[in-house]
Amino acid sequence: MSSDKILKQIAFIHEIDKLKYIQRKTRLFNSDRRENDAEHSWHLAVMALTLAEHANEPVDILKVIKMLLIHDVVEIDSGDIFLYDTVVNHDNTVLERQAAERIFGLLPAEQAEEFIAIWEEFETGDTPEAKFARSMDRLEPILQNASNQGGTWMEYDVEYATVIKRVSGIRHGSQPIWDFTKTLIDDSVEKGYLRKEEKN
Amino acid sequence: MSSDKILKQIAFIHEIDKLKYIQRKTRLFNSDRRENDAEHSWHLAVMALTLAEHANEPVDILKVIKMLLIHDVVEIDSGDIFLYDTVVNHDNTVLERQAAERIFGLLPAEQAEEFIAIWEEFETGDTPEAKFARSMDRLEPILQNASNQGGTWMEYDVEYATVIKRVSGIRHGSQPIWDFTKTLIDDSVEKGYLRKEEKN
Repeated sequence: MSSDKILKQIAFIHEIDKLKYIQRKTRLFNSDRRENDAEHSWHLAVMALTLAEHANEPVDILKVIKMLLIHDVVEIDSGDIFLYDTVVNHDNTVLERQAAERIFGLLPAEQAEEFIAIWEEFETGDTPEAKFARSMDRLEPILQNASNQGGTWMEYDVEYATVIKRVSGIRHGSQPIWDFTKTLIDDSVEKGYLRKEEKN
Repeated sequence: MSSDKILKQIAFIHEIDKLKYIQRKTRLFNSDRRENDAEHSWHLAVMALTLAEHANEPVDILKVIKMLLIHDVVEIDSGDIFLYDTVVNHDNTVLERQAAERIFGLLPAEQAEEFIAIWEEFETGDTPEAKFARSMDRLEPILQNASNQGGTWMEYDVEYATVIKRVSGIRHGSQPIWDFTKTLIDDSVEKGYLRKEEKN
């Protein structure tokens, strides 16, 4: 007979399959196809693994990867919030907190607490691990938009100052990666993929 | 100016986006939609994180997750091989080796070597980490097929003995997870999702 613990863990593993249906606004590299949250989470985890040496402070890379693997699981209930959305609150909302409790709550109690704590650490963004993990989450859509002739910047008419405001937090995770990102953003302005002037 | 190292790492990050287009035979839970390799890799990594305590031997979970995140990257060049394929060789083929060298070879030399070594360790399957990682890779499609009225077992008329032969390696990674899996497979036979008798 299978242990009660395994059955709870398998129930969680079933439930999070739904992340594969949560569509993001951003599209794959050089592509028209929108990315889903599961693909996104995988890509961020590999990015962190690849770029860890550039973190401003030494990071526990296992913790960074845990954060990135589960950071969007709450969106199964609350949906994806577009990075450049000007209406919806980007903070850790009541809805997201309820989602975390419901979904991680499928796990055995001690493990549920551990996963919720990791998710909260990512959301709060204060530790070296959270700062670095969040910089990965900001970097990916920039790489995608730059490869898609502006992507969501063009599609939603987002201007340069807004992009900088939303993504400059990358520098808190990694100064060298922010330097690279800044080059990519400037290059996008030059190519006409991102509007620097205010609209008249 | 961005370092040569970062540029190489970003080139790798771009390239592996293609994993999101590699379709597996297996379908999502309770679904008709096929899974892609990026979603699959994400799910296995979270499964390992969730189920690690059941490994037969203590495992370095960071290494297990690294393996699972990158184990299918070679399929960008070599394509997905169906678990129950009776013609194609499942071993580490020449094509896969070339793919590993090309794709991981985009990284700075030292990192490329590290990633190739992790991929090879997974493929060889001898260490406690590789055994546990491989057990996750075998478990996921069983969960999916059991939730899909037999899924690929029915679709490709795979019989019980073949399933057991292909997936019983799970016990090398975790005896309790194999016990659970065996229950699920027996239950699928009972429900008529998996054929136990030889065809006449």
